[in-house]
Amino acid sequence: MEFSSKLLEKAVNEMSQLPGIGKRTALRLVLHLLKQPKEQTGFLTEALQTMREDIKFCDSCHNISDVEICEICSNSSRDHSVVCVVEDVRDVMAIENTRQFRGIYHVLGGKISPIDGVGPSQLKIVSLVEKVKSGSVKELIFALSSTMEGDTTNFYIYKQISGCGIITSTIARGIAVGDELEYADEVTLGRSILQRVPFENSFKNN
Amino acid sequence: MEFSSKLLEKAVNEMSQLPGIGKRTALRLVLHLLKQPKEQTGFLTEALQTMREDIKFCDSCHNISDVEICEICSNSSRDHSVVCVVEDVRDVMAIENTRQFRGIYHVLGGKISPIDGVGPSQLKIVSLVEKVKSGSVKELIFALSSTMEGDTTNFYIYKQISGCGIITSTIARGIAVGDELEYADEVTLGRSILQRVPFENSFKNN
Repeated sequence: MEFSSKLLEKAVNEMSQLPGIGKRTALRLVLHLLKQPKEQTGFLTEALQTMREDIKFCDSCHNISDVEICEICSNSSRDHSVVCVVEDVRDVMAIENTRQFRGIYHVLGGKISPIDGVGPSQLKIVSLVEKVKSGSVKELIFALSSTMEGDTTNFYIYKQISGCGIITSTIARGIAVGDELEYADEVTLGRSILQRVPFENSFKNN
Repeated sequence: MEFSSKLLEKAVNEMSQLPGIGKRTALRLVLHLLKQPKEQTGFLTEALQTMREDIKFCDSCHNISDVEICEICSNSSRDHSVVCVVEDVRDVMAIENTRQFRGIYHVLGGKISPIDGVGPSQLKIVSLVEKVKSGSVKELIFALSSTMEGDTTNFYIYKQISGCGIITSTIARGIAVGDELEYADEVTLGRSILQRVPFENSFKNN
């Protein structure tokens, strides 16, 4: 791609560093900004810059926050003895959207994945184990993705806290609500039969 | 979508103003920036800001440029009597990439499209007509998209310059190189038969 302007080229190159944004998409986005009033570019760059500089991570659960202790952790009406272990911020948002969980979270910041060079020390596992050993936690819910890396991470943490005498659980795996059986993969379907729940529980909401 | 941080929310909202970027994609991009070193966000915002502030449009052809007269217009080895009329900057880049055109360009900045509120006055048509009437142009090549709006724009300009005694042409429409006949739409195939070219011309490169 040959550019008639170095400024344009630089903007496109920086934009295409973002994941999933190729050179062509980057050019489309940058040309869009050029067509809009200058303020729009100003708003965008300022919002990104301020966010990157000023954002904090909650000291307790490592969720993204504007203050030292996030809204969820500082909410006394939530059950601080039930901790849901998730991979990243998006998972917290997804679970919060369901409005089914009243405990608190612990954001690991990733999964153990040797192939990507991510070991236990890069994740927020030490602070989780400390939290459990301090005795304030009654139940730990593992809500990581159901992949090899997710299962490895679950198992690593499980080993670290074994003997602490707390309840550990994982979120249920099974056929998604609204899905048809014939299209479900056999592992999921197999698990959903093995881990069947009493019928009376299936229409309870809480 | 509920955010645990106002800063994050603002960044995601600004990012999702870009065309084709929804809230989820915006969140993915913003979280990516948070995982990268602070400098990357700095480079991106600075490149966008500098581009938006400092970029110029060529006084002659209205192409994006870092200087008053763009590289193509100031290149004396190009044929300034052949002007290719295009919609936007991307079209200049696409034609330049073919290395088949040695004339100069005129970037309209859009197409006449009443439904989008774009009339002739919002496009760089006056300066094109002036250029033609000054007598420096021998041939005008219309290279707009082959759509209703493109054809309307072509015809509007054609009417404005009729009587100036210059050659006008449009780029050839037909079956794309490598395409199979049976999958071509009938309008394109029909045109490619009506506007057939002498066989000897079909394997010439210039």
